[in-house]
Amino acid sequence: MPDVIVGVNAVSEALRAGRAISRILVELTPGSRLSAIIETARSRQIPVERVDRSKLDAVARGQAHQGVVAYAATRVYASIDDLLRVPQERNEAPLLVVLDGIEDPHNLGAVVRTVEAVGGHGIIIRERRAVGLTPAALKAAAGAAEYVPVAQVVNIARTMDELKNAGVWLVGIDMAGPDAYTAVDYTLPTAIVIGGEGKGLGQLVKQRCDTLAHIPMRGMITSLNASVAAGVVLYEALRQRAAVELARPSQRPSQRRPQLTS
Amino acid sequence: MPDVIVGVNAVSEALRAGRAISRILVELTPGSRLSAIIETARSRQIPVERVDRSKLDAVARGQAHQGVVAYAATRVYASIDDLLRVPQERNEAPLLVVLDGIEDPHNLGAVVRTVEAVGGHGIIIRERRAVGLTPAALKAAAGAAEYVPVAQVVNIARTMDELKNAGVWLVGIDMAGPDAYTAVDYTLPTAIVIGGEGKGLGQLVKQRCDTLAHIPMRGMITSLNASVAAGVVLYEALRQRAAVELARPSQRPSQRRPQLTS
Repeated sequence: MPDVIVGVNAVSEALRAGRAISRILVELTPGSRLSAIIETARSRQIPVERVDRSKLDAVARGQAHQGVVAYAATRVYASIDDLLRVPQERNEAPLLVVLDGIEDPHNLGAVVRTVEAVGGHGIIIRERRAVGLTPAALKAAAGAAEYVPVAQVVNIARTMDELKNAGVWLVGIDMAGPDAYTAVDYTLPTAIVIGGEGKGLGQLVKQRCDTLAHIPMRGMITSLNASVAAGVVLYEALRQRAAVELARPSQRPSQRRPQLTS
Repeated sequence: MPDVIVGVNAVSEALRAGRAISRILVELTPGSRLSAIIETARSRQIPVERVDRSKLDAVARGQAHQGVVAYAATRVYASIDDLLRVPQERNEAPLLVVLDGIEDPHNLGAVVRTVEAVGGHGIIIRERRAVGLTPAALKAAAGAAEYVPVAQVVNIARTMDELKNAGVWLVGIDMAGPDAYTAVDYTLPTAIVIGGEGKGLGQLVKQRCDTLAHIPMRGMITSLNASVAAGVVLYEALRQRAAVELARPSQRPSQRRPQLTS
């Protein structure tokens, strides 16, 4: 059953956050405070229905609806278990990306697209101070979000612990990382951890990484666009995995899964 | 001396193309057909001055100015010779990117940023049906446009011939390319040719490439974001060039990166 979002502020906020909304109900003669909601809904092709007050009262179940309720679409986000299930089923070593605070929907979309392209298994994003799967992000993903699960988590540090416990090696991409990103072994179960635009990795996130690696920078600028950085590392991962497949066609990378202890 | 752009259409077009404008002069009581120009100029923080008709007549030198002239900033674009001069001076094999019709300023900016990051020598863009160094592109370049020359050319096929004559190897990135991009030797003088979003390389451009190479795609989606594609190939180029430098450390000691051990 879909979530019901009730009232002007809650519906406005859900729209602003880019949450998927399947339908909005407004009172028969909506007041001017609803005009922004109606306009946004129309621009996103979300159906807006005019219903009488008793219908709104019923749907809102006693909450103050101020003339508007919205039905949230079934959640578009996956769980961490979902992300780990696919590689297990395919007998592949997990290849994931953790995004620590990406705010630009074009960047998120481009990362989703690249993860799909390299045969990766999923993306983990932060719920707060980060962009979600908004229409702009989905557009930038060029359809890849249909094939790659994205998990949205409240506590990224805790999720990193979960991944460690599942035997996934956490590779943080950071200017101060001692090794170049090309020196890392991505044939192991791997999550590549990428920081937000202009901010890089948070301290808590950095501490939880098993290894920190840098992308060499030969010029004056000290960082890459976040989706380019993710792409560079993901394709190095694919290069290594493809080489292993070629060299040992009978042995899958997942059979080399290490026993990790933390 | 800066270019003077005269009349409503020419000034509107220059603004639309994202050409750098340092100042706009409008008549004392501008008519409504100038309001879009004035609004765009303000939004880009281009100074708009109201001057009397005799001043406009003088600046326009007899051309029909319709109440508006603009001063174009000194050209921000470099020539192909500029792009080839730097590697020659540094005794490096040229590493360039040719963009065949990139329309998204974020993508252009991200490519400029990545070229700068790998120590590349320049970018070549199309003048028509492509984005130029607009404020949005410059912002996405994060300052890298200060360090990497960008040449804007009318005829990209002719420019490719020029590059060939200068001994530059043209590597087109194309789904149908027989080799993977990792099989190309980027230690030679190289221009990496990248197609526009959703369209790929034009037929004439493709025919002029010395080699076509593909980026492996393991999923359902058939292309990467253009700036991610450029980044993946540019970092493969850097990987190869760094390995050559390491193998011959006595040649260019200043460029050694001891931490690159892979």
